[in-house]
Amino acid sequence: MSKDKSARRPKAEPPKGFRDYFGAEVTERKAMLDQIAGVYHAYGFDPLETSAVETVEALGKFLPDVDRPNEGVFGWQDEDDQWLALRYDLTAPLARVAAQFRNDLPSPYRRYAMGPVWRNEKPGPGRFRQFYQCDADTVGSPTVAADAEVCAMLSDALEVVGIPRGDYIVRVNNRKVLNGVMEVAGVLDPSDPDRFAAERGIVLRAIDKIDRLGEAGVRALLGAGRKDDSGDFTKGAGLSEEQAEVVMAFMAAKRDSGTATAARLRDLVGASQTGLEGVQELETIAELLDVQGYGPDRIVLDPGVVRGLGYYTGPVFEAELTFEILDEKGRPRQFGSVAGGGRYDDLVKRFTGQSVPATGVSIGVDRLLAALRAKGRTSGAGIGPVVVTVMDRDRMGDYMAMVGELRRAGIRAELYLGNPKNFGNQLKYADKRASPIAVIQGGDEAAKGSVVLKDLVLGARIAAGASLEEWKSRPAQLEVARTDLVATVQRMLASAPEAPDGSAPC
Amino acid sequence: MSKDKSARRPKAEPPKGFRDYFGAEVTERKAMLDQIAGVYHAYGFDPLETSAVETVEALGKFLPDVDRPNEGVFGWQDEDDQWLALRYDLTAPLARVAAQFRNDLPSPYRRYAMGPVWRNEKPGPGRFRQFYQCDADTVGSPTVAADAEVCAMLSDALEVVGIPRGDYIVRVNNRKVLNGVMEVAGVLDPSDPDRFAAERGIVLRAIDKIDRLGEAGVRALLGAGRKDDSGDFTKGAGLSEEQAEVVMAFMAAKRDSGTATAARLRDLVGASQTGLEGVQELETIAELLDVQGYGPDRIVLDPGVVRGLGYYTGPVFEAELTFEILDEKGRPRQFGSVAGGGRYDDLVKRFTGQSVPATGVSIGVDRLLAALRAKGRTSGAGIGPVVVTVMDRDRMGDYMAMVGELRRAGIRAELYLGNPKNFGNQLKYADKRASPIAVIQGGDEAAKGSVVLKDLVLGARIAAGASLEEWKSRPAQLEVARTDLVATVQRMLASAPEAPDGSAPC
Repeated sequence: MSKDKSARRPKAEPPKGFRDYFGAEVTERKAMLDQIAGVYHAYGFDPLETSAVETVEALGKFLPDVDRPNEGVFGWQDEDDQWLALRYDLTAPLARVAAQFRNDLPSPYRRYAMGPVWRNEKPGPGRFRQFYQCDADTVGSPTVAADAEVCAMLSDALEVVGIPRGDYIVRVNNRKVLNGVMEVAGVLDPSDPDRFAAERGIVLRAIDKIDRLGEAGVRALLGAGRKDDSGDFTKGAGLSEEQAEVVMAFMAAKRDSGTATAARLRDLVGASQTGLEGVQELETIAELLDVQGYGPDRIVLDPGVVRGLGYYTGPVFEAELTFEILDEKGRPRQFGSVAGGGRYDDLVKRFTGQSVPATGVSIGVDRLLAALRAKGRTSGAGIGPVVVTVMDRDRMGDYMAMVGELRRAGIRAELYLGNPKNFGNQLKYADKRASPIAVIQGGDEAAKGSVVLKDLVLGARIAAGASLEEWKSRPAQLEVARTDLVATVQRMLASAPEAPDGSAPC
Repeated sequence: MSKDKSARRPKAEPPKGFRDYFGAEVTERKAMLDQIAGVYHAYGFDPLETSAVETVEALGKFLPDVDRPNEGVFGWQDEDDQWLALRYDLTAPLARVAAQFRNDLPSPYRRYAMGPVWRNEKPGPGRFRQFYQCDADTVGSPTVAADAEVCAMLSDALEVVGIPRGDYIVRVNNRKVLNGVMEVAGVLDPSDPDRFAAERGIVLRAIDKIDRLGEAGVRALLGAGRKDDSGDFTKGAGLSEEQAEVVMAFMAAKRDSGTATAARLRDLVGASQTGLEGVQELETIAELLDVQGYGPDRIVLDPGVVRGLGYYTGPVFEAELTFEILDEKGRPRQFGSVAGGGRYDDLVKRFTGQSVPATGVSIGVDRLLAALRAKGRTSGAGIGPVVVTVMDRDRMGDYMAMVGELRRAGIRAELYLGNPKNFGNQLKYADKRASPIAVIQGGDEAAKGSVVLKDLVLGARIAAGASLEEWKSRPAQLEVARTDLVATVQRMLASAPEAPDGSAPC
């Protein structure tokens, strides 16, 4: 490094919209991914890990927000002038893999994938430009049994990570039904599917925003357009009031039972072939789920779900957490969507020219973790390591030997490696590490062949208001023979209550 | 998608130098990362996960190959004209975090991190532009006890993932000793450390390439320069023959025992204060390791190790696998380096202006996996799911119920979701999935209330040459009551030998 540079120091911060995850944040996410992978595995899905980087050409342009500059991805040109980009989801890379290895993969191919994806979007509170997805997809199966399977698996996955039945609902709809409704409304012409494509895109995105915009907002977008709070105008689909009415009726078609909902949808799609096919598919999905015990307390037909992505061609589904949490301003609100997916029969065709049916689900793991934290359902806890302190820096070898013995006995342990001069700092360090026990051996103890064990959990409990009896029943520290170090620590740990892990700095 | 695009289809392949990982490739790497994380955890290290993207300014320029265009990273400019890039290692992000959270993190801060890193380098056989690293570092500890700890931990990690003692060696050196040697050679002036910096960089990289270039190649680079096979000329450090001799003597200073090596180094560094300090540090490391039982069969002093990175300031170490494998051309060669690290006391200072001592190790997990595979030490195996076949597509609900029952009993199971028309295809599919058992229920069985279970492991074993006795002792298929489905499958699986997992397509 040249001298010039030391004058202008780099800023110690991640790029805007990115963040770091510490200690329990990492292990909790990992535990959740492992649990979900266990469910996917049990269903016969195999892992696939593609790289973070794809060619822009292979990724395609399937982000829900197509209006933004550079279209939502982080991209760059490589030395061959080819455009590369970070994947924005795990579905586009799967489509590429399914096309590339179509002769080698089993068909149908069930695969799961988990890892970060990147979106070049405006960051906001709780909204980051890198986040985890955890997907499972079946490629090569045209039957809605595959869609039903994915819905059941999603339900299992939510329960496995700790969302009890009743706290979530998987809502299922079908794009074909929506297309049927569009036919009835006169914005879809089966003989010329490209006609009105732009209008249908606007309708789709408008419906997807009902929770945020409300009925009036959606109606505005179905019609001439909508001016938002900032004064920006979004062009609408240009539907007449009658046409808009048909679409709104579709969204409100949910009835008390799946059968009643299907009947209402059958009315709405009228003579549309596509629409009737869609209703039939929904009925089959409901039956297949029912027979396995996934009733409407877990999975329901709900025409209000359409999903923003343009590539879905059949069933679509979304998992929502139904409990309330407090938002940043302390107001109760529904937690909302944590997973979604659907059938996309044309993504592989982009590469091969041949239609390959596919369906799958994506779980937003970071949102799911946030939900569990909001409900206080993650442990967030963990006991820190035993800390061996340094009283005499000439005997580092002795202290290291203690740490080694503890570890070989399966006890997480570390040696204090800061400046040992101030012993108070060593205990403060042990505290910050949520250490249960500090091991101390000064010259006197070494001469006697003993060590002192300081019970730090007790200290924490006293601070948290332990009773006098408890205080008396546990000695704050005890001196034992050096040869009894491991056995005594084991005994102390066995009797210690769990202490919070203080490893996360923020 | 417009009609124009369907004419020009995207290529179904990842960008050059990137690849996909299937099935066992993913689970084996994950298992290895979990094992290493277990060791790091036991040593008191806490997980940290930073994002893949950093500002170029925060990353700094510390790649070993500084000569390449755009300096080895994948970078781009964001909408604020700030340059961002994919991390090329896990150390640079740690330095940024240590600076950013210096008031909140425990000090010393022991952290581990695992994940992909990206290098914009020329890809080659087995050399990819995205690969995994698995690092552990201690920030804030100046004592070489921290370096010794990291070396011991590296040794433990290698053994835990399945490299037995004797098949690896951790070699330790010290940059201060090299600096002492440079002083003696006259290319380092303690009163003006920046003088001869370029020459020292060339010396460093030359020494690091001894395995590839041989002694003559290194000597050429120490002197005027070297022309490689392609005719390209690399400028040398411009050392005289006498100077080069000092450096070469340093590299050859390894003796039979650590004590003898240290003594030889003490000779070589002469009166250099830095050099003597370095030798003393090496002796302390060797003592601390010895007392814990990490003798020279696992960790040795070896001046031949310097590491290419410019930022190391003290002890450096490298783990090498000592067994031979066959290269692409079938020639035996040493497997070589799988991990390395060292002390870097100035990386955090870049941000804060204050020196923060740090040391750590990085394990190249993908290379380690390749080594285990080359030795046939990974299982690569795993049994596929039980496949429930579809004889009658009107009874999908019944088949799904069977799959659900098996899963609830903890048995990995899946329903065949391809076109059920050709039953042979269903069995071929089950074969490709390495399925141990196919479940079959046609109309007759359904009427009788029974199912047929086909033992596919037996089929595979017969193909692999099972004896006639074995053939006779296991029925190829059996019909049982539908209510006995789960119990019978459990019994068959319990008696089945492990079958290879056929999930990887390449």
